[in-house]
Amino acid sequence: MTAVANLTAMEVEALTDVDGSLNLTDGHARLALSPDQAAIVAALPTMFAEASRRRFPDIEREAHTAFLQAIGQHSAPIGTGRILSCYSSTLATDIVARALPNGSTIAVLHPTFDNIADLFVTRGLSLVPLSEEDHLDQVWPGPPVSGIVLTHPNNPTGLVTPKEHLRALAEHTVRHGQRLIIDASFRGQVRDAQYDTYAVLDEAGADWILIEDTGKLWPTHELKVGLLAYSARTELPIDRAFSESLLSASPVVLLLVTALARNWTEGGYEYSRALVERNRTAVREAIEAVGLRLADPASQISVARIALPDGGPDSSVLYQEMLSHGVHVLPCAPFHWADPQGGLRYIRLSLARPFEAVDTAARTLARSYVELTRATTAPVH
Amino acid sequence: MTAVANLTAMEVEALTDVDGSLNLTDGHARLALSPDQAAIVAALPTMFAEASRRRFPDIEREAHTAFLQAIGQHSAPIGTGRILSCYSSTLATDIVARALPNGSTIAVLHPTFDNIADLFVTRGLSLVPLSEEDHLDQVWPGPPVSGIVLTHPNNPTGLVTPKEHLRALAEHTVRHGQRLIIDASFRGQVRDAQYDTYAVLDEAGADWILIEDTGKLWPTHELKVGLLAYSARTELPIDRAFSESLLSASPVVLLLVTALARNWTEGGYEYSRALVERNRTAVREAIEAVGLRLADPASQISVARIALPDGGPDSSVLYQEMLSHGVHVLPCAPFHWADPQGGLRYIRLSLARPFEAVDTAARTLARSYVELTRATTAPVH
Repeated sequence: MTAVANLTAMEVEALTDVDGSLNLTDGHARLALSPDQAAIVAALPTMFAEASRRRFPDIEREAHTAFLQAIGQHSAPIGTGRILSCYSSTLATDIVARALPNGSTIAVLHPTFDNIADLFVTRGLSLVPLSEEDHLDQVWPGPPVSGIVLTHPNNPTGLVTPKEHLRALAEHTVRHGQRLIIDASFRGQVRDAQYDTYAVLDEAGADWILIEDTGKLWPTHELKVGLLAYSARTELPIDRAFSESLLSASPVVLLLVTALARNWTEGGYEYSRALVERNRTAVREAIEAVGLRLADPASQISVARIALPDGGPDSSVLYQEMLSHGVHVLPCAPFHWADPQGGLRYIRLSLARPFEAVDTAARTLARSYVELTRATTAPVH
Repeated sequence: MTAVANLTAMEVEALTDVDGSLNLTDGHARLALSPDQAAIVAALPTMFAEASRRRFPDIEREAHTAFLQAIGQHSAPIGTGRILSCYSSTLATDIVARALPNGSTIAVLHPTFDNIADLFVTRGLSLVPLSEEDHLDQVWPGPPVSGIVLTHPNNPTGLVTPKEHLRALAEHTVRHGQRLIIDASFRGQVRDAQYDTYAVLDEAGADWILIEDTGKLWPTHELKVGLLAYSARTELPIDRAFSESLLSASPVVLLLVTALARNWTEGGYEYSRALVERNRTAVREAIEAVGLRLADPASQISVARIALPDGGPDSSVLYQEMLSHGVHVLPCAPFHWADPQGGLRYIRLSLARPFEAVDTAARTLARSYVELTRATTAPVH
């Protein structure tokens, strides 16, 4: 085993932990299926047969249509060849990173999931952080920054870039000849982020790349796709990078996505949202009882950050303490990829889990926090 | 759309061709399921439920065991943490390429699937070709080459590296402090390649990396995994590169692989092999009727190269002519990644297709070849 320190490594560790501990690390949906969703999964053999019978381009276009319509993206370039179905949004990001000019400088939202920054760095790009504050204040970098990378909504903070704000940013990138790259992996969970982004970007004349993801919406055991869409203005060798990475996503998975996306517009969204919000409430109540609070009370995505007061135990200590109680969560330092110290006062729990798991984890967190605080402040005899 | 020229791009083009033409490009299995395999696919909803109930590490270990035992790899490091389940063998190769020291020089078998060379080049490595002739003559490079990359069996030639030969190569790499990287994606199709490679490499004391693939064996519509296994001697940051690429493969796919691998040892192998060999015979008979021959008559993998005599139409011309008749195949120049001219006299057909498709394609090839030859040699009036 080699040394690892990124968030996914901690998620892998939690996933492969053999002692039966609770895993609230990754943002993948691990909620129970609704009855309708369960009926869809029961039709998998039929989908398999359908994938054998029908032409791949038809299956793919249908999935793009159903999914993008379900999340409000009515102006997405369906049927133009400019939407590529990847195994995952991570692979889509890596394809973009590979297609960008080597050595170029891009600005990346900060904090955000460390993997996004890592993939760009590993491909030889120079990164500068764009803080959420600067982004909200419309303080965007000009050249030599040639691209701006947003996460929308942001992970872990849940920050949604409002429509008029995105329009201003798009116009900024047009003025400065920059590319705008948006990872919208959590978009499906948040109605506020479901305005027609493609229309806004095209109206501004932007050179845009958008990454969509089905992996955060449904508990489908990694049967998912990441979509990589790009503007007609984009001249990067994205198709080449795609063809170096894969031949095609699975048509069976695309058929599953089609069915789940249709259900998403027929109550599936509200069903999942209610489960997540019930879990968020459980976390809030458990931590407020010991004087802690949610860092992002307005967040609507399926993870929650908890703010830890200055002077008390930090998230790396609390993370270890919770591990010793059999609960995996994520300390937030790695999300602050350009300034890990900045994340020490936050810890993240995934809410896309059965209620009992979230409730137990939140209570464990509260108890651990109290114990650690007492140990720190207890008089020494 | 950007300019593309690799083999996968041609495969994507064939897959997404909307006019209903025949696709004999990619080596992915698109045969009919056997009755036993169909029964396994029918159990997908049960597997989904099982994936929800059981722990991921147990499901993964079971899949590794079933698959690696089914293809004779009894000494693979199951349960050590040194076998990583990736979405595909391509992603496994890219993870290896990322983990290798930047700027190092590796030797790669030649010809072979261009994607292998491309992934290494894109990650900043320097490549030198190792011809099949030199490999067979045991003329292997020493330093500064720090790694040797084999495809076993090779694609498209079907060349199998015999056991004693691999042992000698492993000892060569130990003497020279080199790594040995083997892509065994087609191994499951060929008994001769199923000797226990892990035992041979470990006995020699080699620093090895092995890539296995379930994607070439079963017509499961891209529901597949690539396995990335590495030696205890390997000190590369492979786990880090893996965690940058994905969290985990799908446990549903791993359960499907387990069931299909068990069936592979109970008649599945013979069933698929009979279909492929019937198709190879159809190709041979169709082309021999017009004076052409199989380039690799001893090949046992699910693709066949056809040799084109000097002076006649080359494979790029024949490829275009077949396209005009609605048949997608692969010209072989890109397989000769270090010398594209060297591949002009070969054209490749996938045999993992329904008989009618292969038979039609072979007859189209024969007819196209005759027509092109006549056009070239016809007297001008």
